[in-house]
Amino acid sequence: MEKNEWVRELLDDDKFHDECGVIGITSPGQKNVAKDIYFGLHSLQHRGQESAGIASNMYGNINCYKEMGLVQEVFNDDVMSKLPGDIGIGHVRYSTAGGSKVTNAQPIVVYSKFGSLALAHNGNLVNAVAMRNQMEDEGYIFQTDIDTEVIAALIARNLRNGTIEEAVQKTCRIAKGGFALVMTMGNKLIGVRDPHGIRPLCIGKTENGYILASESCVFALQGAKFVRDVKPGEMVVFEDGEMKSYMYGPEEYRMCSFEYVYFARTDSHIDGVGVYQSRREAGRILAREDKEDTEADLVIAVPDSGTVAAIGYAEESGIPFGEGFIKNRYVGRTFIQPTQEMRELSVMMKLNVLRENIEGKKIVMIDDSIVRGTTSVKIAKMLRDNGVKEIHMRISSPPVAYPCYMGIDTPDRDKLMAANKTIEEMREHIGVDSLKFLPVNGLKSCIGLGDNICTACFTGDYPVELIDQNYKTNKLFNDDRMVGEYDDIHAEDSKPTL
Amino acid sequence: MEKNEWVRELLDDDKFHDECGVIGITSPGQKNVAKDIYFGLHSLQHRGQESAGIASNMYGNINCYKEMGLVQEVFNDDVMSKLPGDIGIGHVRYSTAGGSKVTNAQPIVVYSKFGSLALAHNGNLVNAVAMRNQMEDEGYIFQTDIDTEVIAALIARNLRNGTIEEAVQKTCRIAKGGFALVMTMGNKLIGVRDPHGIRPLCIGKTENGYILASESCVFALQGAKFVRDVKPGEMVVFEDGEMKSYMYGPEEYRMCSFEYVYFARTDSHIDGVGVYQSRREAGRILAREDKEDTEADLVIAVPDSGTVAAIGYAEESGIPFGEGFIKNRYVGRTFIQPTQEMRELSVMMKLNVLRENIEGKKIVMIDDSIVRGTTSVKIAKMLRDNGVKEIHMRISSPPVAYPCYMGIDTPDRDKLMAANKTIEEMREHIGVDSLKFLPVNGLKSCIGLGDNICTACFTGDYPVELIDQNYKTNKLFNDDRMVGEYDDIHAEDSKPTL
Amino acid sequence: MEKNEWVRELLDDDKFHDECGVIGITSPGQKNVAKDIYFGLHSLQHRGQESAGIASNMYGNINCYKEMGLVQEVFNDDVMSKLPGDIGIGHVRYSTAGGSKVTNAQPIVVYSKFGSLALAHNGNLVNAVAMRNQMEDEGYIFQTDIDTEVIAALIARNLRNGTIEEAVQKTCRIAKGGFALVMTMGNKLIGVRDPHGIRPLCIGKTENGYILASESCVFALQGAKFVRDVKPGEMVVFEDGEMKSYMYGPEEYRMCSFEYVYFARTDSHIDGVGVYQSRREAGRILAREDKEDTEADLVIAVPDSGTVAAIGYAEESGIPFGEGFIKNRYVGRTFIQPTQEMRELSVMMKLNVLRENIEGKKIVMIDDSIVRGTTSVKIAKMLRDNGVKEIHMRISSPPVAYPCYMGIDTPDRDKLMAANKTIEEMREHIGVDSLKFLPVNGLKSCIGLGDNICTACFTGDYPVELIDQNYKTNKLFNDDRMVGEYDDIHAEDSKPTL
Amino acid sequence: MEKNEWVRELLDDDKFHDECGVIGITSPGQKNVAKDIYFGLHSLQHRGQESAGIASNMYGNINCYKEMGLVQEVFNDDVMSKLPGDIGIGHVRYSTAGGSKVTNAQPIVVYSKFGSLALAHNGNLVNAVAMRNQMEDEGYIFQTDIDTEVIAALIARNLRNGTIEEAVQKTCRIAKGGFALVMTMGNKLIGVRDPHGIRPLCIGKTENGYILASESCVFALQGAKFVRDVKPGEMVVFEDGEMKSYMYGPEEYRMCSFEYVYFARTDSHIDGVGVYQSRREAGRILAREDKEDTEADLVIAVPDSGTVAAIGYAEESGIPFGEGFIKNRYVGRTFIQPTQEMRELSVMMKLNVLRENIEGKKIVMIDDSIVRGTTSVKIAKMLRDNGVKEIHMRISSPPVAYPCYMGIDTPDRDKLMAANKTIEEMREHIGVDSLKFLPVNGLKSCIGLGDNICTACFTGDYPVELIDQNYKTNKLFNDDRMVGEYDDIHAEDSKPTL
Repeated sequence: MEKNEWVRELLDDDKFHDECGVIGITSPGQKNVAKDIYFGLHSLQHRGQESAGIASNMYGNINCYKEMGLVQEVFNDDVMSKLPGDIGIGHVRYSTAGGSKVTNAQPIVVYSKFGSLALAHNGNLVNAVAMRNQMEDEGYIFQTDIDTEVIAALIARNLRNGTIEEAVQKTCRIAKGGFALVMTMGNKLIGVRDPHGIRPLCIGKTENGYILASESCVFALQGAKFVRDVKPGEMVVFEDGEMKSYMYGPEEYRMCSFEYVYFARTDSHIDGVGVYQSRREAGRILAREDKEDTEADLVIAVPDSGTVAAIGYAEESGIPFGEGFIKNRYVGRTFIQPTQEMRELSVMMKLNVLRENIEGKKIVMIDDSIVRGTTSVKIAKMLRDNGVKEIHMRISSPPVAYPCYMGIDTPDRDKLMAANKTIEEMREHIGVDSLKFLPVNGLKSCIGLGDNICTACFTGDYPVELIDQNYKTNKLFNDDRMVGEYDDIHAEDSKPTL
Repeated sequence: MEKNEWVRELLDDDKFHDECGVIGITSPGQKNVAKDIYFGLHSLQHRGQESAGIASNMYGNINCYKEMGLVQEVFNDDVMSKLPGDIGIGHVRYSTAGGSKVTNAQPIVVYSKFGSLALAHNGNLVNAVAMRNQMEDEGYIFQTDIDTEVIAALIARNLRNGTIEEAVQKTCRIAKGGFALVMTMGNKLIGVRDPHGIRPLCIGKTENGYILASESCVFALQGAKFVRDVKPGEMVVFEDGEMKSYMYGPEEYRMCSFEYVYFARTDSHIDGVGVYQSRREAGRILAREDKEDTEADLVIAVPDSGTVAAIGYAEESGIPFGEGFIKNRYVGRTFIQPTQEMRELSVMMKLNVLRENIEGKKIVMIDDSIVRGTTSVKIAKMLRDNGVKEIHMRISSPPVAYPCYMGIDTPDRDKLMAANKTIEEMREHIGVDSLKFLPVNGLKSCIGLGDNICTACFTGDYPVELIDQNYKTNKLFNDDRMVGEYDDIHAEDSKPTL
Repeated sequence: MEKNEWVRELLDDDKFHDECGVIGITSPGQKNVAKDIYFGLHSLQHRGQESAGIASNMYGNINCYKEMGLVQEVFNDDVMSKLPGDIGIGHVRYSTAGGSKVTNAQPIVVYSKFGSLALAHNGNLVNAVAMRNQMEDEGYIFQTDIDTEVIAALIARNLRNGTIEEAVQKTCRIAKGGFALVMTMGNKLIGVRDPHGIRPLCIGKTENGYILASESCVFALQGAKFVRDVKPGEMVVFEDGEMKSYMYGPEEYRMCSFEYVYFARTDSHIDGVGVYQSRREAGRILAREDKEDTEADLVIAVPDSGTVAAIGYAEESGIPFGEGFIKNRYVGRTFIQPTQEMRELSVMMKLNVLRENIEGKKIVMIDDSIVRGTTSVKIAKMLRDNGVKEIHMRISSPPVAYPCYMGIDTPDRDKLMAANKTIEEMREHIGVDSLKFLPVNGLKSCIGLGDNICTACFTGDYPVELIDQNYKTNKLFNDDRMVGEYDDIHAEDSKPTL
Repeated sequence: MEKNEWVRELLDDDKFHDECGVIGITSPGQKNVAKDIYFGLHSLQHRGQESAGIASNMYGNINCYKEMGLVQEVFNDDVMSKLPGDIGIGHVRYSTAGGSKVTNAQPIVVYSKFGSLALAHNGNLVNAVAMRNQMEDEGYIFQTDIDTEVIAALIARNLRNGTIEEAVQKTCRIAKGGFALVMTMGNKLIGVRDPHGIRPLCIGKTENGYILASESCVFALQGAKFVRDVKPGEMVVFEDGEMKSYMYGPEEYRMCSFEYVYFARTDSHIDGVGVYQSRREAGRILAREDKEDTEADLVIAVPDSGTVAAIGYAEESGIPFGEGFIKNRYVGRTFIQPTQEMRELSVMMKLNVLRENIEGKKIVMIDDSIVRGTTSVKIAKMLRDNGVKEIHMRISSPPVAYPCYMGIDTPDRDKLMAANKTIEEMREHIGVDSLKFLPVNGLKSCIGLGDNICTACFTGDYPVELIDQNYKTNKLFNDDRMVGEYDDIHAEDSKPTL
């Protein structure tokens, strides 16, 4: 077994993972905005633990520091003192363990004729390969694997014929996929959200200036007030304490529903919807669906992700909520090489059953999602080994059957349990007495944005054409590509008009 | 402000802290018992995060590795491969931040004529200074600051006139205070609990052998069965797969009540009492006391320590339980130097208010204890800033008014809020509408061991004479002592008979 | 005083420093050529101690690892196992202490439509800013400060209209300055030397393949035979075990004379000249010049750089050679912050006087060069403090009065002692009884390449136009540049025709 | 092959190695004497590169810091600021690679009734095992493997019945072997040299106070004047700026001759003898012995250890001195795992032949000693491969045929080439045309101390009885000892009278 795999297995709780969190702050007259970025990134740490970076902008002069590790591990006094400026942007990146490298960390800074540009990106483009190919055709070179470099190169290219505002908008019209960008150049802080609004980005107001952030949960620590979400297809530009809005290309609005299911922090509000409320409502809907079928003594959650829905389920059903598991919070980031026996223990290293609460009982157990299903099998076994009489597993989202290509780290489709098994087969494989999922319309109902959510990972209904995916292979960006291997993919019709 | 202080302030949630967790395993015929110790220490990580150590014993030959850091950070393949043996002991130590050093880490290993002895210790002696002084009088030298070295030296000394079983018992009759020891020498694993049973230690049975551990929560991961707790004043010796018990000196039984209040992991059982049940019962008792006085819309907990009691309070009172705070789990171990403004933010870096759940409501907020009260003030302010109408704070333990000298890291008395203020003054200072504590008899009732608990930190009723404390100063063990400074404390009557 | 400065002062022995060493190896049929690169870089370590990097090429697939540190510190088993391939290139970079960063380390790897290209560079372009400006005008972006990125971008751009052989030649015709490049792409290893042959590069033959290296001293460890030097304006391409030569643009031949004076390892041969012989001959010439003027008891060297010339001086003059100083070899790379008193000691930390050899004597002391003169002052004082009667300082190169812009790290002109003082003033400032330098024609004579050497740092006679230097400022590549600052430098006439 | 072995092979140049260097400074009125210790340890770095440590003493209060690494790597601003005091001692320890651990680093600090004592030790006791056994019999325990702990324990024990002066003298009368100790306790700095004067220790005077050091080469950097060597069997005590001398037990004077041969720095004087002069004289004696037999074109040295003797040989013989090898100074401390092929290269990584100087010539090659002979074989082959016509190897010390037990790290006897081969067999095995050693009387003559030198490693004539060696095994102090294994060695007659 590869190290990557078992580290992931030990770390992972069988969830989808966000690839990034971004933040940008402008604070005219204050020279150490990096400190505020630091706190903001700390509040976004749940969106990515692999690397952290801050770029600060002092009169157009940009300094950047990024490193593998948690925000509190990466930055210290010494580093912070080298990041002066009244505009700054920051980035946290999800740990994909082995394949990660510091050269892929963000923000990235590029030097062009028109000055220095720092850029941080949450999301994923579905035509990055195609755009990159075309730029390479024109002689451009790239030094990293990440689509952020393609975006930066396009902006720099477009700067030849226009202002930064024009260059960014032109670039964002060409880029396809889900993205939320924060940038700084000259004396401006810029934020953009993709035309479908797939990835979130919101605006806050501080005493001195403004904040752009992936989630509103950062505002409390900053003493900032929530202003509004950036709109799909909108670019906002902050300069001299003023905000200007540019609508460069809104399309069908399709906010990522998985942010509500799992990614976002419970105390965030995204596009007007409280994450906590939507999760509690998901639990209530599950309870309503069960009303006549399920008899149980206790509702428990798989901590921490199932807790809010479990509270909602308990409220609606009248079955008492209790704790079934104790979570071990001290899970480090280095491990000894596990044997098979040790891998079996990995879930038990994180979760401990509270036997006296569950022994001899009929249990409703709420989790937020099932991805590969590996953890669910182990959890169900732990419960049975501790004398649970019946396990009724309820999932506060629909079955995950499709990968995401718009900014979420998901396994290949053949690894997704729901893509390969019926619900009854899943129930049997996991070993529970009943298994139900939140239906897609239940998901829509609990979020409350109607059809304006992306449900692609549940339904396969992608809001954008999967341009790069339609190539024979998507291995273009890794280190393994061979000379000439992709000649056949430069078909004229797949080229975007840059 | 000293670095120690602000790191503590940033890390600390104003709690007492255990000083250690210990484990010992004998597994005849299995040569890599260190792997099991590793998992056991992981399960005890909540008892200490400063350093971790394992000593393994192969036919009397002892190897030891200890380092600053979490268990998963300290041990890797390479280190584990150098710890062969079928008997092993392990130790985790609480982070007191700046003052810590690796030379004080445990287990300690000493070489004597009779072989190598490895020793790990949870607890604190109240006559270590006196014993050390006397041994130094006799020409003994010491190389660390810790009382564990005094215990080891006494055992080695007593080995001249008897077996290891006799030497340990003789030593434990002289040592005063709270202690749980695990040791290995030759082909034996030995465990001892102090005569009052102040510090916990329990016995588990695996397929091949036995486990000694500070808490029963380690057994699940080991596939072990709980056998029983070691008794006050008992020494147990494991040799060739057999357990022998020696009662060397039981005295009045006084198990530490704070283990139930805060230290122990919720899924542990200590001296027959489930920690989860005792905490829930504490919440119920608080609710019963409130029955007629307090009207509220919601019961919330200060996570994570108040959660179980809050669930109990909600059950008993009928007031719904909800989440008022979201905890940021990504709190690192390195920090940038905080300004005053940043220190204000430290609680907000860990706790985030879930405004929609609490705004405009009358809230019962449960915490497990108040030590200095610093965090309580900030939490109360956060709630009021988020529109809470009334805050009724309930503490699931009595007011903490006395330091512990039997193994718990506590501030000096002048730092303890309850030692310096009346409950009404505390209420006003914290800024809540009402404040109530679990009475001492409520504590006894929810634990259910009658008077067999130590309540010294609440009542000042210490189960042992504070011998070293009665010296003018207790600075003897630190690096700052001067030559001759303690001449006046060698009064004949304070010398123990070693 | 800035940390950079005192670290440099502590480390530095007041010398010019090479900026890099490069190596490339092709070894068809052997998959771990990185191991050979490793040994080669070790042999080139004297050319740069800041960072080390290796890029390996397996069927066009390039992997690269580079890090701050010595070769033996950067590479270990694990890293080496990730560098498979039968073609490889390597790079060591000089430590400029504080300002260095890993993003500027080499080799650099770029991804273009035509495949991956790895590039390592020794030297410096005098029109990198101009070329970069022009490319930025066209929309290109850059991510580092180094001119190597400009070269790579130009090659990638030129690949659109031709083969790699054509693209490299076209690029090297545009690039001005001193450079030796090694590259690999597809199944080729390529080496280029600048049109003037300023920076050295030579070819060796192993059993299986070929080696390109900055100096011939690498061949011994590789079991390779010296073939010949790459010629000025020549590109050599190795493919399938064959070498092809392309003369893309030789100009007036001007090999860097300072390689013979100080940079190159004593056992290297460059352009047919043995470094050892040229240094010994320099000493002999100095002795001949002195013949009638100087009476002395002993010839000593400032170790290690003056040793060979001192041996030559002793041979020619008949005055015995002896050791005047003992060098402390254990000079680490981290330092405590020096006080003024400690800075005074810095030379004494490296050099210790062997008093009994020199006391009461008239001494001829040979050093290879004087740059700032700071060290010379301290050394002279050490000798006088140890009872030397007369100090006759002889320098085996002419006075250094001009900075180098073709690949050598030199101080600004106002820091060069000989640019600001007459020889008599220098003598007085240093505090010696007499001071003489090797005249320029002596330098030519001892090297034996006639006028085909670059003597710019002595004479100001630069072999190339200093294009970038003619801009108002040369700060373009550092992090401090401001938006718009360079608008005025984009004058049409300074643009190269790319 | 074990890692230890090949690291040693890569690092080692087949020499004996000193085990330590010590220094002590008292500087009344100056509170940061640690800074001076730092510079002193830097000057002693050649005596040990494994670990470095400083203990500072402020009014009897001792702080100590020690770590693996070079002096400049171990100490930084932060560490130095925690070492206040006007008395300090320091220690460097030789790198024995794998087996080393920080718990064995020095100085050691022990806490006793009478205050804190810091102790640093250069040398080795020949009765440490016996003394330790006896103390363990009495119930003492030990925590490290090093004999320094035994010395400290004995001193502490003896303090019960006397002053520190009495306790140290009493201890040093019991301890057998070669030792130089520096200690500090209360307001005193103490130095002791063993009764035979086997290990060196000398006294210097600074403006404010005194220095004790293993070698006089430390004085230059300190601005100190050499006072005299400590005498065999002498203890010197510095208090309040005064020095007192106590002769506790001088015996037959036997200074280690290998200090002159190889260990000491060339600019040191030991017991009145200049190290440089003694080495040059050794070369002259070799030349005189050769006068009629050997015809040669050039005298070269194996750098650096053979250089001074080679200069002497050239002077005496009239054959010119030249450089035959260039040494690579950049040898790091981490390595990739070598293959057989790479091990062959290890000498070539350090030494490079200067072919043009030696090709076709008859060479006299001087080295200081031959231990295992492994390196000599490789060096001879390198010379022959580079066209040397004849190699006449001369060794400036007698054949090494016996291990040292008095403070030098030597291989077992069966690894010593001269213990197992005749000189003619050695010559043939190494592959040289002739091989001669300095005779023992030549060694005595070049040192000039008559019979007052220890020549045990050449002659087997040990100045002390090898008490511990007469036990069946000397494995007592390592980690591998088993319980009971040594019962048979506690024979009454081998017990020292403590």
